[in-house]
Amino acid sequence: MSRGDGERPSAAVLVTGNEILLGLTQDRNSGYLAREFDRLGFSLRRVLTVSDAQDEIVRGLRELVSVDLVVTSGGLGPTHDDRTIAAVAEVADVPLELHEPTLAAINDRTAGFARQRGIPVSSFEAGNRKQSLVPRGAYVLAPVGTAPGVVVALDGGALCAVLPGPPWELERMWHDLAREPRFSRLVERAGALDRQILRVYGTSESAVANAFAESGGDEGGTVTSICARRLEIEVLVRAEPAHRAALDALVAGLRERLGERIYATDDRPLEAYVLEAVGARGWTLAAAESCTAGLVASRIAAIPGASAVLVGGVVSYANEVKRDLLGVSEAVLAAHGAVSAEAAAAMAQGVRRATGADVGVSVTGIAGPEGGSEEKPVGTVFFHLSTPELEHGHHVVMPGGRGDVRDWAATTALHLVRMHVAAPA
Amino acid sequence: MSRGDGERPSAAVLVTGNEILLGLTQDRNSGYLAREFDRLGFSLRRVLTVSDAQDEIVRGLRELVSVDLVVTSGGLGPTHDDRTIAAVAEVADVPLELHEPTLAAINDRTAGFARQRGIPVSSFEAGNRKQSLVPRGAYVLAPVGTAPGVVVALDGGALCAVLPGPPWELERMWHDLAREPRFSRLVERAGALDRQILRVYGTSESAVANAFAESGGDEGGTVTSICARRLEIEVLVRAEPAHRAALDALVAGLRERLGERIYATDDRPLEAYVLEAVGARGWTLAAAESCTAGLVASRIAAIPGASAVLVGGVVSYANEVKRDLLGVSEAVLAAHGAVSAEAAAAMAQGVRRATGADVGVSVTGIAGPEGGSEEKPVGTVFFHLSTPELEHGHHVVMPGGRGDVRDWAATTALHLVRMHVAAPA
Repeated sequence: MSRGDGERPSAAVLVTGNEILLGLTQDRNSGYLAREFDRLGFSLRRVLTVSDAQDEIVRGLRELVSVDLVVTSGGLGPTHDDRTIAAVAEVADVPLELHEPTLAAINDRTAGFARQRGIPVSSFEAGNRKQSLVPRGAYVLAPVGTAPGVVVALDGGALCAVLPGPPWELERMWHDLAREPRFSRLVERAGALDRQILRVYGTSESAVANAFAESGGDEGGTVTSICARRLEIEVLVRAEPAHRAALDALVAGLRERLGERIYATDDRPLEAYVLEAVGARGWTLAAAESCTAGLVASRIAAIPGASAVLVGGVVSYANEVKRDLLGVSEAVLAAHGAVSAEAAAAMAQGVRRATGADVGVSVTGIAGPEGGSEEKPVGTVFFHLSTPELEHGHHVVMPGGRGDVRDWAATTALHLVRMHVAAPA
Repeated sequence: MSRGDGERPSAAVLVTGNEILLGLTQDRNSGYLAREFDRLGFSLRRVLTVSDAQDEIVRGLRELVSVDLVVTSGGLGPTHDDRTIAAVAEVADVPLELHEPTLAAINDRTAGFARQRGIPVSSFEAGNRKQSLVPRGAYVLAPVGTAPGVVVALDGGALCAVLPGPPWELERMWHDLAREPRFSRLVERAGALDRQILRVYGTSESAVANAFAESGGDEGGTVTSICARRLEIEVLVRAEPAHRAALDALVAGLRERLGERIYATDDRPLEAYVLEAVGARGWTLAAAESCTAGLVASRIAAIPGASAVLVGGVVSYANEVKRDLLGVSEAVLAAHGAVSAEAAAAMAQGVRRATGADVGVSVTGIAGPEGGSEEKPVGTVFFHLSTPELEHGHHVVMPGGRGDVRDWAATTALHLVRMHVAAPA
């Protein structure tokens, strides 16, 4: 918790918001900022969440002033309980001043919004004025929504970047921050760490931990974290540039032991790998989804440019939809049920036929909490992949609640496509 | 940040884990604990996340000892970088001791696991012993996984409950904590707060803030937070039972001013309201989705029992799917484009026809980053609701990145259904 002179710059995140301390909202910004700090080579020391009360924000800031950079998130809105700017001014020991260009920009934006929604412009006046107050001498980041960000030196030495709470506003403004001279000097001082990410699918966390130990572990000066999430094991190896050789040796050892279970060496989303694999064959893709009900298609569509490969899909929650849109026969449904290998195969083949896609993937299962049986307990999910080259069925029983089963089922379907559409070697 | 003598007990959460500060994992426990504290009537003052380093955990604990209860999450595993118990013992100023019943329980559990996986039992010995060390005098919570929890008084006065990091282990052990006498005395002292939630759709945060001010604000002793998320404004009013009348008066004032824009007075998900509204008419529902690509259907399907109302839907990413599965005519696509009021109407009507659902809702838009034009910029989204009683089109231009536009578009579609399927008064 100190400024590292000659070391990597240190950082802290201060999240404000009663709604977070009440459990009404989940903070997403600290995770985003943590990844950014790691990418830039900052050492993130703490994340502290406090209420909207000005004295709590002031106290929190004062406890964090020994780092190089404090980033705050939230409390910039137009209402009485948005007090971050006032608290920062207090800790920076400067008064608040009206920033005219910001007021003009916000007025302009809310006028458009008011027109569109038929709300009187006057209802925004007080809020806009409040949001245009900034600490004297602060560097002002133009509003992304209707709140400006500010950068100001705190009494105690830390540079403080005050960013808005809504994630898309914070992320956009974080990029604008790069132009601020004091921040960019810290980024320059940081330099990036050497880092290598290995993402592993199809084995256990202990197997990965064993491969890590057998490869010599962190003996050579690397810092490795191994972390299971969404059915994959993520290995992140980091090292100061002086320990580059140790990093390379460890990564080589892991590659040798884990082989093609390592499916990615960057942090691009799984869905991007799916699109790439299908696109590389010149094929198109469609999904037939029962228990996931659109999760597979919507996750793929989250990737920009997905439309080059994804043609669409059918959410076949009801058996009538399986029959009418996907051509799953009454005979299959009667003999094996909607949650069966046979139904999954008919769904995947049916969605190819219905949409004209080259590749069809299907998911049908029992997400719970109701609907399980002795033979097919809650968590039973059948998958099928149908391509111009193969028919491949898969079947698992997954633990967890309804949300987990659906999320894991969608993830499993995506991996199925990724693994099995690749051209034969 | 003090013990409230005669007031509600105060609490703090200390989350440990390098993987969180590196942005590899998102902490879910603090949100769970926040909701529990609010339910029990504790005042949660802070959530602090620190690394796995023992001195950082010790420093964090020392900063939090002025509250009544500190709950820690994580760092109880068998490996060298699990140091929470040692740090807590240091701050409690007591030595660590082997807890024999815990060792027996863990040995038993790992023996079974080792047998099942064919791993030598001996490989667990050191880890099991480490996990059975507890601060002298601590109350021991039996392991849910392989780590016990402990409850111990810190030097400085706070009671400290040390819980494991995996969410399902933490949640189970949190319930076991109710049996610990010092904790249950705090719970008794807390009593529950009176609280009322109002969820508002179709107006701005400023307008809600104005309604709050006009209703007298928190003058009567209430504590209100106003929070915008996912296109709705959430107002949470809380009060000590002594201020119940002020709470009721404020809520009445807000109801009078915001009227039917208040759509919910509990924290059930929007999707549950959609199912309820459609189900109350005895109708079924299907979605035709382009840019949201299954988000609307999958969010509805997240609610247990959705299958009574949701029959399914079509993800019509490609124009051919709009035409072949939804019957959107080439003429409409040629004259108005796939992102148009006309296409949206044809999609909603088409998905009713294709699936037999009584109600069809459609979404078609430009999520970006590519595909925008002067006439239809990125963020342009058309919606249509088709029911046995009405045809209703809607059109907005949304700010934000691809993910935000898609999420907000799905949310808007859900609200459209919720608002317009209600029976005429």
